[in-house]
Amino acid sequence: MKRGFGSDNHSGISPEVLKAIADANVDHALAYGDDEYCARTAELFKNTFGQQAEVYFVFNGTGANVLNIDAMCRSHHAVVCADTAHINVDECGAPQRIVGCRLLTVATPDGKLTPDLVRTQLHGFGFEHHSQPRAISITQSTELGTLYTLDEIRALADLAHSYNMYLHVDGARLANAAVALNCSFREMTTDCGVDCLSFGGTKNGLLMGEAAVILNPALDAELKYRRKQMGQLCSKMRFMAAQFEAYLVENNGAPLWRRNAEHSNRMAQLLYDEVRKVDGVRVMYPVQVNSVFVQLPRDIWTALQQEYFFYDWDEDANVVRWMCSFDTTEDDILNFVAALKKLMNK
Amino acid sequence: MKRGFGSDNHSGISPEVLKAIADANVDHALAYGDDEYCARTAELFKNTFGQQAEVYFVFNGTGANVLNIDAMCRSHHAVVCADTAHINVDECGAPQRIVGCRLLTVATPDGKLTPDLVRTQLHGFGFEHHSQPRAISITQSTELGTLYTLDEIRALADLAHSYNMYLHVDGARLANAAVALNCSFREMTTDCGVDCLSFGGTKNGLLMGEAAVILNPALDAELKYRRKQMGQLCSKMRFMAAQFEAYLVENNGAPLWRRNAEHSNRMAQLLYDEVRKVDGVRVMYPVQVNSVFVQLPRDIWTALQQEYFFYDWDEDANVVRWMCSFDTTEDDILNFVAALKKLMNK
Amino acid sequence: MKRGFGSDNHSGISPEVLKAIADANVDHALAYGDDEYCARTAELFKNTFGQQAEVYFVFNGTGANVLNIDAMCRSHHAVVCADTAHINVDECGAPQRIVGCRLLTVATPDGKLTPDLVRTQLHGFGFEHHSQPRAISITQSTELGTLYTLDEIRALADLAHSYNMYLHVDGARLANAAVALNCSFREMTTDCGVDCLSFGGTKNGLLMGEAAVILNPALDAELKYRRKQMGQLCSKMRFMAAQFEAYLVENNGAPLWRRNAEHSNRMAQLLYDEVRKVDGVRVMYPVQVNSVFVQLPRDIWTALQQEYFFYDWDEDANVVRWMCSFDTTEDDILNFVAALKKLMNK
Amino acid sequence: MKRGFGSDNHSGISPEVLKAIADANVDHALAYGDDEYCARTAELFKNTFGQQAEVYFVFNGTGANVLNIDAMCRSHHAVVCADTAHINVDECGAPQRIVGCRLLTVATPDGKLTPDLVRTQLHGFGFEHHSQPRAISITQSTELGTLYTLDEIRALADLAHSYNMYLHVDGARLANAAVALNCSFREMTTDCGVDCLSFGGTKNGLLMGEAAVILNPALDAELKYRRKQMGQLCSKMRFMAAQFEAYLVENNGAPLWRRNAEHSNRMAQLLYDEVRKVDGVRVMYPVQVNSVFVQLPRDIWTALQQEYFFYDWDEDANVVRWMCSFDTTEDDILNFVAALKKLMNK
Repeated sequence: MKRGFGSDNHSGISPEVLKAIADANVDHALAYGDDEYCARTAELFKNTFGQQAEVYFVFNGTGANVLNIDAMCRSHHAVVCADTAHINVDECGAPQRIVGCRLLTVATPDGKLTPDLVRTQLHGFGFEHHSQPRAISITQSTELGTLYTLDEIRALADLAHSYNMYLHVDGARLANAAVALNCSFREMTTDCGVDCLSFGGTKNGLLMGEAAVILNPALDAELKYRRKQMGQLCSKMRFMAAQFEAYLVENNGAPLWRRNAEHSNRMAQLLYDEVRKVDGVRVMYPVQVNSVFVQLPRDIWTALQQEYFFYDWDEDANVVRWMCSFDTTEDDILNFVAALKKLMNK
Repeated sequence: MKRGFGSDNHSGISPEVLKAIADANVDHALAYGDDEYCARTAELFKNTFGQQAEVYFVFNGTGANVLNIDAMCRSHHAVVCADTAHINVDECGAPQRIVGCRLLTVATPDGKLTPDLVRTQLHGFGFEHHSQPRAISITQSTELGTLYTLDEIRALADLAHSYNMYLHVDGARLANAAVALNCSFREMTTDCGVDCLSFGGTKNGLLMGEAAVILNPALDAELKYRRKQMGQLCSKMRFMAAQFEAYLVENNGAPLWRRNAEHSNRMAQLLYDEVRKVDGVRVMYPVQVNSVFVQLPRDIWTALQQEYFFYDWDEDANVVRWMCSFDTTEDDILNFVAALKKLMNK
Repeated sequence: MKRGFGSDNHSGISPEVLKAIADANVDHALAYGDDEYCARTAELFKNTFGQQAEVYFVFNGTGANVLNIDAMCRSHHAVVCADTAHINVDECGAPQRIVGCRLLTVATPDGKLTPDLVRTQLHGFGFEHHSQPRAISITQSTELGTLYTLDEIRALADLAHSYNMYLHVDGARLANAAVALNCSFREMTTDCGVDCLSFGGTKNGLLMGEAAVILNPALDAELKYRRKQMGQLCSKMRFMAAQFEAYLVENNGAPLWRRNAEHSNRMAQLLYDEVRKVDGVRVMYPVQVNSVFVQLPRDIWTALQQEYFFYDWDEDANVVRWMCSFDTTEDDILNFVAALKKLMNK
Repeated sequence: MKRGFGSDNHSGISPEVLKAIADANVDHALAYGDDEYCARTAELFKNTFGQQAEVYFVFNGTGANVLNIDAMCRSHHAVVCADTAHINVDECGAPQRIVGCRLLTVATPDGKLTPDLVRTQLHGFGFEHHSQPRAISITQSTELGTLYTLDEIRALADLAHSYNMYLHVDGARLANAAVALNCSFREMTTDCGVDCLSFGGTKNGLLMGEAAVILNPALDAELKYRRKQMGQLCSKMRFMAAQFEAYLVENNGAPLWRRNAEHSNRMAQLLYDEVRKVDGVRVMYPVQVNSVFVQLPRDIWTALQQEYFFYDWDEDANVVRWMCSFDTTEDDILNFVAALKKLMNK
């Protein structure tokens, strides 16, 4: 299938990641994480997020999100999140089934929680009929391609901690956010008071692999057993560690995560610059990372889907989502916009 | 780490599998299984197990086993299995947490259930205080390296069906069994009346990847949602399908699964032939697939572990397990046995 | 504690119910429902709701609601309900923990779902990332004291069935609704197409006891095991059946449920008639059953709470809830309103 | 149904308990435990078990057992128990579904765990593939009518604590045990180091009501929410408290629990004394509390069941169970034995 704008997980494996897998494919290694690759990569995570950080590799974003929720919550707890949050709308109820807790969802204008929005859910403490709010979960960058500033993250962490709650970040696209905010992973998480993190890799060039990163040591108790119990313990884990090692180490002047995310963000900017000039196309949100949400006539986007794969985001509102990947090229953008213009001018 | 006899998941990736991943790493593909690789490989599974077979790729054996149990059981059901079964002793309670059902375990002399052993658990039907027996689960080849004959499998399937129950096969090492029994996968499963199968790949040369294969269409209802909910839905699934394609298609005169399994079984035979001659070493079970269980003096096996990694199986009984892999060499065996003999002769 | 307006479960046991318990306290009876009282009362339920009706006695409303949801849904399903629904806000997440499913909540003006409101949640069918809508749950009478007409219930049942979904009624106060609508239980449930029902008793004079009533036989499969597994199987069940028998049989010209509910509804009308005349008190919803929601100055209601126990409903909006019970007297009302007036005139 | 020997829950309500319910049936009371009856009875529990004791009333034994397990364990933990334990064989898998943990069962000669039997399950600590042993659960008196001495309980508590584990007592018949051992509840629990207790009432004269009693304050955290979430929070809880008050306070020279248990134990002794003389009847276990297990010819016990209801315990072994209740009379025993003898002499 030709390159399109459907999702950043429609792309394949970054060549450096594939090479790391091949390089790790020698001799034997202990399974389940007791190997030198995992040891080395766990150190890299500590260097990246602080020495207290404990990394749990898992298979996918669902695994990372649910393991983190399980670290923060028991079944009578609740997680406050945006109603557009991936954990709410795209996990087929995994937190409910696996952890048994509630999500308390809040409508937002742009996919972002604020302390005021969160406070609407902070009641019923001590009342046994009410699931007890225990965590706030935000997505950085959000499902709508918007970003929290460091101050905004810190404010939510402070709010959480003032209620004896925790702050979780779903960072499936944390790399794109770090590039856009020009900050380190640590500045955006540990230094803001984030308690645990779903650290994405797959959408930015890994074959498969995500990580639950526990930043608050109070959350770490006996989590390894529950990773196993949830079916998220990889046997040949060296190949997951090797991917993250290739992702995090400096190479060619910058770590791979930064180079890939810079590229996909830049491609989204190019796409934005091109389509904003097209009459009849309305860009919905600020383009800060690697996605562009646009509103355009239904017959146009359905016709365009004949040539390129992408998802409608809100069919009733004629809003569609275009995602750029680490492997999107300038030509991809220009050809796509040309196809769009051709349809608009019919 | 040098090659040892710890586990068949201490080995790496079969070169043909790694090549298939690299070959699939072009252009874009739809995520979550809607790609041509998955379509092609699903066909391969149908050709292998029968046209009614539906394959659900999952990340690991826990995922395959739990998804299959979830296909057969609700929470008030029970699964009869050997007390040595992987689902009982090595999943950290995943069936209990995820499905909520009970396992009814039976002691066995050799890791194998028989109709008579199963019948000890077939009571309490209709009695609401008692978890209702709903499935029998066997492992082929077993955790002790023993094998069910086709007739034995068929007898257990018949017993299950006569009680309106299902038969599940945990086939983490099904390839080794098929080689040892000189039969096809289908003859050992579908044709015996098996209802669902955990089809292993990782222990026989895949990077990572297992499959829940539903052979009885009655079990297939809405399973895809629960795979997602359990965190077992891979996004870049083309890379999982590509591995299984490389595993199943004929190549170099035989499919990879057969060549790899033949090799690891043969290595185990060689190991068996060499160690049976060593005084003071007692082989515990018939060596039918790729493992050798031996009893030997404690000081010997602990000393040998300084040179080679392997697990004690029953520390009190001085029984250890030696596993061969697709990448074990004759020299590995001969060197290992030489080291053993040297220790025995001290 | 003197009689107040806190809740209809602050009242005690109807004398006829207590007498039925005492009358059943002779000799021995089989436990867990296999006794003559249960047999007789199950017949009464069939006479009340139709011959297909199967009744499962449970301990409380949480038990009835969760058992019904478990009858309709597996974990990947979702239940559409009002955001004010008891199952959403007052069960501490029981459906999530016990069934593992999602609730899809809808804001409503008056606690009532409509087909249009429900349809906002009816999407994502077939999409494995999305919990599959499987049931609609309404409360009759609602948590806000409002009522669905028979036509409104039928319309929701038709909508549910057109999507292969089910309609559940949380009838903790079904008796008050039947009296208000002047209809039978059956006309309001079975005849409207309701699939299952939480039939309340405790709030209308029972010591303790609710019932999950399965009206659609397709939902009945193996439910008795899951009632037991959920901890909702009563051992000396004859005493639960005897209460419901006293509740449902004709006595003194009408069944107890009707006499009790007529009384508490009438008391609420009296309260409404008295307080509507008081300046500064605003009645929020139509008073149709046994509750009156009013808005009044904060200093007034907090002062009134010194004399009478009742709950604030929306503290920020100064809305409080006054509930009448089967044992509320006219004097209770008149004294209460006098106390209110005295505070208002200070 | 005439009085038989089926179960101690085939009996009805002790008159003093029924009177206590009637006496509490005045005025209003706050629901869910915030009433004077509950406050008073909670004090009684503290006086009975020690000031640190926290009582959670629940509806039945399943509720008490599962709430206690939930207080001790998360899903990756395991509870060691006898294979005959009620939590293993008679809860339809409630611990598995609700808590998600494993039970590690041990065969015993007489229903009693010993430190040596428990130690067979105490391995795999720290190994993430293995459910972590976290609690020992014993039943006092056991399901076979046998008793733990105080020393035996203390030894199991010490063993548990030495492994950072907890000891739970399923005390559905704790009163019968206390009478048999001539000790207080506290001597048998708190003073032996028991961490939590399922305190039975229903089988010894209550209408319905059991209590989870947390003796180790470390286990108490946030348990009230999970009682609610499990559907075990009673609304009109005053009537449950009133029953337990009548059960625990001194009256007529002794608390009701003691008088009732003394009686049922004495009736079992009488039954034992009478049947031991009957040729062809073999008493299986020491008769220490209110049950008698006997082996007798199949045609005899099936014929006897035509006249009296009782359960076969092990059909294959021709072992049946006869239970005495607080309302069993001497005549009941003598008539029963006469009927038995008549059948034996045919």
